[in-house]
Amino acid sequence: MIVIMKPQATQDEVTQIVDELKGMGLSVQTNTGVECTVLGVLGNTVDADTSALELHPSVDRVMRVSEPFKKANRKFHPDDTVVKIGNTAIGGRKLSLIAGPCSVESEEQIIDIAERVKASGATFLRGGAFKPRTSPYAFQGMQFEGLELLQEAKRKTGLPIVSELMSPKHVEFFEYAVDVIQVGARNMQNFDLLKELGRSKKPILLKRGLASTIEEWLMSAEYIMAGGNENVILCERGIRTFEQYTRNTLDLSAIPAIKKMSHLPIVVDPSHATGMHWMVLPMAMAAIAAGADGLMIEVHNDPKNAKCDGPQSITPDAFCDLVNKLRQTAEVVGREV
Amino acid sequence: MIVIMKPQATQDEVTQIVDELKGMGLSVQTNTGVECTVLGVLGNTVDADTSALELHPSVDRVMRVSEPFKKANRKFHPDDTVVKIGNTAIGGRKLSLIAGPCSVESEEQIIDIAERVKASGATFLRGGAFKPRTSPYAFQGMQFEGLELLQEAKRKTGLPIVSELMSPKHVEFFEYAVDVIQVGARNMQNFDLLKELGRSKKPILLKRGLASTIEEWLMSAEYIMAGGNENVILCERGIRTFEQYTRNTLDLSAIPAIKKMSHLPIVVDPSHATGMHWMVLPMAMAAIAAGADGLMIEVHNDPKNAKCDGPQSITPDAFCDLVNKLRQTAEVVGREV
Amino acid sequence: MIVIMKPQATQDEVTQIVDELKGMGLSVQTNTGVECTVLGVLGNTVDADTSALELHPSVDRVMRVSEPFKKANRKFHPDDTVVKIGNTAIGGRKLSLIAGPCSVESEEQIIDIAERVKASGATFLRGGAFKPRTSPYAFQGMQFEGLELLQEAKRKTGLPIVSELMSPKHVEFFEYAVDVIQVGARNMQNFDLLKELGRSKKPILLKRGLASTIEEWLMSAEYIMAGGNENVILCERGIRTFEQYTRNTLDLSAIPAIKKMSHLPIVVDPSHATGMHWMVLPMAMAAIAAGADGLMIEVHNDPKNAKCDGPQSITPDAFCDLVNKLRQTAEVVGREV
Amino acid sequence: MIVIMKPQATQDEVTQIVDELKGMGLSVQTNTGVECTVLGVLGNTVDADTSALELHPSVDRVMRVSEPFKKANRKFHPDDTVVKIGNTAIGGRKLSLIAGPCSVESEEQIIDIAERVKASGATFLRGGAFKPRTSPYAFQGMQFEGLELLQEAKRKTGLPIVSELMSPKHVEFFEYAVDVIQVGARNMQNFDLLKELGRSKKPILLKRGLASTIEEWLMSAEYIMAGGNENVILCERGIRTFEQYTRNTLDLSAIPAIKKMSHLPIVVDPSHATGMHWMVLPMAMAAIAAGADGLMIEVHNDPKNAKCDGPQSITPDAFCDLVNKLRQTAEVVGREV
Repeated sequence: MIVIMKPQATQDEVTQIVDELKGMGLSVQTNTGVECTVLGVLGNTVDADTSALELHPSVDRVMRVSEPFKKANRKFHPDDTVVKIGNTAIGGRKLSLIAGPCSVESEEQIIDIAERVKASGATFLRGGAFKPRTSPYAFQGMQFEGLELLQEAKRKTGLPIVSELMSPKHVEFFEYAVDVIQVGARNMQNFDLLKELGRSKKPILLKRGLASTIEEWLMSAEYIMAGGNENVILCERGIRTFEQYTRNTLDLSAIPAIKKMSHLPIVVDPSHATGMHWMVLPMAMAAIAAGADGLMIEVHNDPKNAKCDGPQSITPDAFCDLVNKLRQTAEVVGREV
Repeated sequence: MIVIMKPQATQDEVTQIVDELKGMGLSVQTNTGVECTVLGVLGNTVDADTSALELHPSVDRVMRVSEPFKKANRKFHPDDTVVKIGNTAIGGRKLSLIAGPCSVESEEQIIDIAERVKASGATFLRGGAFKPRTSPYAFQGMQFEGLELLQEAKRKTGLPIVSELMSPKHVEFFEYAVDVIQVGARNMQNFDLLKELGRSKKPILLKRGLASTIEEWLMSAEYIMAGGNENVILCERGIRTFEQYTRNTLDLSAIPAIKKMSHLPIVVDPSHATGMHWMVLPMAMAAIAAGADGLMIEVHNDPKNAKCDGPQSITPDAFCDLVNKLRQTAEVVGREV
Repeated sequence: MIVIMKPQATQDEVTQIVDELKGMGLSVQTNTGVECTVLGVLGNTVDADTSALELHPSVDRVMRVSEPFKKANRKFHPDDTVVKIGNTAIGGRKLSLIAGPCSVESEEQIIDIAERVKASGATFLRGGAFKPRTSPYAFQGMQFEGLELLQEAKRKTGLPIVSELMSPKHVEFFEYAVDVIQVGARNMQNFDLLKELGRSKKPILLKRGLASTIEEWLMSAEYIMAGGNENVILCERGIRTFEQYTRNTLDLSAIPAIKKMSHLPIVVDPSHATGMHWMVLPMAMAAIAAGADGLMIEVHNDPKNAKCDGPQSITPDAFCDLVNKLRQTAEVVGREV
Repeated sequence: MIVIMKPQATQDEVTQIVDELKGMGLSVQTNTGVECTVLGVLGNTVDADTSALELHPSVDRVMRVSEPFKKANRKFHPDDTVVKIGNTAIGGRKLSLIAGPCSVESEEQIIDIAERVKASGATFLRGGAFKPRTSPYAFQGMQFEGLELLQEAKRKTGLPIVSELMSPKHVEFFEYAVDVIQVGARNMQNFDLLKELGRSKKPILLKRGLASTIEEWLMSAEYIMAGGNENVILCERGIRTFEQYTRNTLDLSAIPAIKKMSHLPIVVDPSHATGMHWMVLPMAMAAIAAGADGLMIEVHNDPKNAKCDGPQSITPDAFCDLVNKLRQTAEVVGREV
């Protein structure tokens, strides 16, 4: 951390700030210049609450130098994390393809979709049981019954299950019923939920919040990891911008950014990002070309009659076509499907 | 709702869509034009999930006409809602002034602040006990002990308490301990929490999410109201934009917008919106001039040593000065402090 | 400026960077710490192009300390600038009220409006002659004829004229025909135009760009001032955000921000910011309460038939009512209408 | 266009609106429903200014159905436009690779870069001569001398030249000196400049504005095309969002969106979008995988000493490596380098 004193700060004022910083257990290097004094602050500034320093009339500005996340930071963990899930994994050379409907709607639906995406190369089955809906009057998901149908589909196909958790009180049941617990974009800073998940051992797929910076996203991963659960997978799903043509704006530059800043794997959800089924293929291709570790794609056997998000769902046939096209793109970037 | 068919849609295709809409219990007016057919759809389109209609190759576009919220809608409830809290209220001619520290830090601190803001004209005491912090390493609040200190301050001053709830499992204790339950910006779409609060009778202060549209904000109010709790107070606290000079961008046009669309009261938090103590006064004045029903302001007796958000806190003396300046502004808009 | 070296930077690498900075005419203080070396750089870093320093593999980060604007900076010009225009001025105790139609449409229209806004207390007449329209097929303004009609209205009412310039080739004619040259939001970073206006002596009303930070806005003012024209008035007119209910999001916190950073006067345009006539009054009140030096308001004698921006125009009667309400608000903040 | 009357609108009020629309030369279908009357409006609503209709107290809402652009619209021009430039073209099966420095700095520099990018497969040479800089104190480019050096580089390598025009008064010289005239992001809505370029025959590379929607971008293309110049190439270069890690947020979903809405070719500039040289390769790969017709990439032979934008420039060697990696990606999407 760097503290820049005002040009008119007196020697006493500088001493006061230095003493305050030392009182927080930090070490300080004083750098007396012609125009102003600059303090270089070393030690565990991540834990110290130093923002109030700017209230001193003698302080001009406080600038942070180091990132506020530790466990998620590549600097302290240079190798890529590979999250193991049963016989498969997210984060290695092989791309993870998570496919399935927005909502589980019936046994026939989920099993039909599961079998078809499995045949095309999917490595995980996604399906919403508890659904976060903007309107209280919209379909809220099949809930526990939905999770049981997902388990049935897993028994039939062997595909591990990814499903979204909305309430801390369901953590225990999700740990029993699913393979990867998804935290939705709207809950990315539901710190109460993140703390609960830090006590779990289940892999967590953490979606980026609608208006969350990359750093805030990593801080939410840090919440889970600081609690003891280091099995975190990040999922870029578009951010909110002024552009309204697409549902959100898919930020693919988050992929190289995350790869540089963190060791955690990152997958991309082009379905929620764009909101339009015909954009899923080009954006999926782009995500893999940019270095993503996998994709999360909404697939429905009857999009017109889907209970939610029909417009952004692709059919099992379109998914099969997409996987075939991805195969070559994956090779170009040294990955495989 | 309006459904615009594609120019090349056949009569059979139009009939198919009309039948589908009727099957959802909606009534349809067919309007056959020279260039295309337009369907006017009447009935409860709020509950129907009609987005998937756009997947029909014969449909060009679906446009919503009516707002998706009902209980929060001024159309169905023309009079302003006044939320009663003990002997006071939020929403009437008298402005509500909610003041206090970001975090409760000690008995001396909270009682000193409570007494001083009370003396200056505050009508509610705010104080954080459970704190939503971006970093897991930052101070997380005094939690239950903090709530007890707030109750102690209430016994001393008579000021009703506003405090933020983060976990559905604490609802019962908050109902016992506080007068108004605050839902923070990061939990505005924590639907699980909103549903729990719909079952409560306590007034809820619902902060606008960082990247939430006015309509989404009203939909979150609708979640609480649909559950049976109509005591909702909205709180504008700034939205996230590209501008980084201020912590957030305070959207004061949300005040007239909410007043037109809804009957719910709205207060403004200039402290979190700007992040800088010297901006609180001008933005508080502007909020009242624009028609807000009250303010929520961070006041700390020692901002430099505050455990959180020191830079945006004003002192009790500055709060006293602010209330005096507000008095005249309130009169101009037909309100009183 | 602060340059933070990487922890592993060698002494030779540090020396190399120091030499490079000295070669730019800057002086450098070396601060050798336990973890890393920090260089404090003094001198005219505003003119030096130092961003490329980050390309050195030994450099971790470069952080700017001082603002990049000089002539617009309050630090070097502590007193408020008051821009004189004929017998009136923008920036003093008296608020400036700039009123008139989006477009000049006819002699009757502009003279009728001019007389009525003058009677209500307007101090300037605005009127568009050259119109920046998103569509090439929309009405582009009466152009030179429009400017002549504005001059006619000025002869009748004495109101000085504010009108938007779109082309550098019209600068000379605008200098002749108007009292204040407006630069529209879309031209805020049309640097070619700004340079031309720097060579003029006419007061310039510089609107904030749709997605411009406060600093970029001041840098555009700096372009005009660096050219020799220090008569710059800033105009906040809303920024583009994700919220679509209003046309733009009016950023009133820009008022105290500009007042702190700069000595230039600032007026607010609530008409373009909100896009809705019924929001003009509350947002005008809020702007004055927040400390603005004046307002720019669209007034039309027949909004329903206005050739552009009818929905955001208020009538002359509504303007009269607005001025009366402002009078009291102005007093509260120590200003007068 | 659809006009929705208020539920309480009388028959007379409906007739009044219908007459007004007919007076604009439009035809109207009246659709009398149980709850409200809906008017379907046909004819050239693109040219008509109908926004003021919403001011009628009897009108609830006006909704546009058709896109406001015609010449840029794929509906009226189903085949892809291929812009011919000398012996090459932008928009066909072969990808266009536009490479070169941010600024022309010297003869040696531009010729060295031109020869090396040519050898690696570049098809155009870019180089800034007139530079749009946020600060008036920053290097403004070599101007006319820079254009002459670009011509010299063209003579040596045969590469056609792309360079940015900032002033309408330079149009004639640019028509003489360059092969493609670039309009920068900050001038995307400099309508005066767009009109001048509409009178030219030179191909125009139109960058997307920092905060411009895809529709506004196409409307700016429409300005040029409506003037008679249909040789427009679009260039996505990132939009401004809340995320500050990257310089801008590259919106790759604009590629399929433009391909659906328009017939114009689109290239992507990953250098300005990200602002960081190490992000150029993954984002270039992603752009081609998403269907872009080409790339615009900043290449400098000495990024550390570049006069502008060094941090986002790649070296000629890195460009060579990038082209090789693109070759395979291009094949996957049926294109070639």
